[in-house]
Amino acid sequence: MTDSAPIFEKIALIGAGLIGSSIAHAARRANLAGRIAAYVPRPETRARAEKMGFADSVHGELQPVVEDADLVVLATPIGAYAELARLVAPYFKQGAILTDVGSVKATVVKDVGPHVPQGVHFIPGHPVAGTEQSGPEAGFAELFDGRWCILTPLPETDSATLERLKEFWRRCGSEVEIMDPKHHDLVLAITSHVPHLIAYNIVGTAADLEAVTQSEVIKYSASGFRDFTRIAASDPTMWRDIFLNNREAVLEMLGRFNEDLAALQRAVRWGDGEALFNLFTRTRAIRRSVIEAGQDTAAPNFGRLRSGAGRGG
Amino acid sequence: MTDSAPIFEKIALIGAGLIGSSIAHAARRANLAGRIAAYVPRPETRARAEKMGFADSVHGELQPVVEDADLVVLATPIGAYAELARLVAPYFKQGAILTDVGSVKATVVKDVGPHVPQGVHFIPGHPVAGTEQSGPEAGFAELFDGRWCILTPLPETDSATLERLKEFWRRCGSEVEIMDPKHHDLVLAITSHVPHLIAYNIVGTAADLEAVTQSEVIKYSASGFRDFTRIAASDPTMWRDIFLNNREAVLEMLGRFNEDLAALQRAVRWGDGEALFNLFTRTRAIRRSVIEAGQDTAAPNFGRLRSGAGRGG
Repeated sequence: MTDSAPIFEKIALIGAGLIGSSIAHAARRANLAGRIAAYVPRPETRARAEKMGFADSVHGELQPVVEDADLVVLATPIGAYAELARLVAPYFKQGAILTDVGSVKATVVKDVGPHVPQGVHFIPGHPVAGTEQSGPEAGFAELFDGRWCILTPLPETDSATLERLKEFWRRCGSEVEIMDPKHHDLVLAITSHVPHLIAYNIVGTAADLEAVTQSEVIKYSASGFRDFTRIAASDPTMWRDIFLNNREAVLEMLGRFNEDLAALQRAVRWGDGEALFNLFTRTRAIRRSVIEAGQDTAAPNFGRLRSGAGRGG
Repeated sequence: MTDSAPIFEKIALIGAGLIGSSIAHAARRANLAGRIAAYVPRPETRARAEKMGFADSVHGELQPVVEDADLVVLATPIGAYAELARLVAPYFKQGAILTDVGSVKATVVKDVGPHVPQGVHFIPGHPVAGTEQSGPEAGFAELFDGRWCILTPLPETDSATLERLKEFWRRCGSEVEIMDPKHHDLVLAITSHVPHLIAYNIVGTAADLEAVTQSEVIKYSASGFRDFTRIAASDPTMWRDIFLNNREAVLEMLGRFNEDLAALQRAVRWGDGEALFNLFTRTRAIRRSVIEAGQDTAAPNFGRLRSGAGRGG
């Protein structure tokens, strides 16, 4: 196939929120699909998705979306996967690829796997990209550019089919990594799930204080707190499902976090300036590595617009 | 005084890192000073500050900076304040204002207060603004625009002098709030100090894992972790001094955080989806308030440049 030929005649998106709609935008940008059909069950959201125009057709039924599709992408909160997999099973085209975009992989293999018919290739996936926003208006074609997409193929996945899905993600702008599902869940627990949990937690703690008012917390949030509110604004259903489905790895990583925090708390209590200084110096180096790896901007404050000045900086 | 007349004939900056140099830039932008002198003890840093040109003169000695100054600003890490206050005491002009920019106020009152000569007005202050960067090159005139500056005047501070310093900060772009030092320290513990502590902590935890490599943590950091690395890249000396000087309030707020985290951990362990969903919905509302208050951008991902696209979004 040449770089400009579509990879799939028809793509079916089961769900068209931030990730589903971004896949549609990215697929259009790179001419990856003959046509794109999207399943959006709620009439009000469906109307908004239709208006956005990133899919050729938007449906309230699964059958017209899935039938004839060469690639079917589960892009709802993962708690809905098992039931959706059961419902779409009768409509698959033989030889179709089924993938997903969920932030947990071991339970997805377990929940979805049994519903996948013979002759359909199930390759779980996770594009490691996003914003705190959700809904069909939140997507954009550049979301995956320079980000990593992790695929966790099953032992029976054939290499030609896997290569086709890898090529799809590369032309969406991603780099592709192959991983074991359990290892994926451990990596994401520390890079994503525990960071979200503690961001949600501190925003909740701050909101509940009596000695400090909520209006004070908000007024002085530019001193650090505001960064956490962004992550803590992520979609509640999606994140509830992630924690319900990656319990073991999250608890393991949270245990490490708590151990280290107890030591840090002790350093604060006993005034151990050297321990504090050493940690703060070590973490600074990690920031540099993240920037060097192209995973964040080097601009101060994430390049937030400077208020009053109307320019990045 | 008119809006365009300088407020002070001479401003002395003791330290010219991110905050000190930003004060110089903001004071020049609004014509707030006849001249600006800066004290930068390290020859290498002094050469860089001189090259930046934000001060009319940069010195390695305190006397030429402080003498004749109408406003003297302590802008070093707070651990150096007491010794500096002792050293500058002989050089103050009668009627001068001494202020600072430290993120802790009660210990500053206690450490600096005793060194302030009769006839000098000491008004502790804290511009609640910053970036993760440091040094004389990190400053910019817009840093304080739309941010809050908290002043914690002493009981004996006269209102005309206080008004003069408030006017200075307003013309630097800030809004000004008056607060009790102890309350300031409690507010900042939750909005700034504990958020920094847990960001430093999780970046340290992630760096130390054996099951997940550091290169994996960095590659997949766009899933949440990278946000924490920004804060954890803040100046180690400055932050060591903050924790050493705001111990009580930090430990109090950290206690609250830990209690709430234990409850959340339990919700994850027992699969209490409703508790998770309720917290995640509540925290989303706080994000909206931060944006409505003008303390953060509404753009997804803080408006980070979209990779490949070269534009904000």
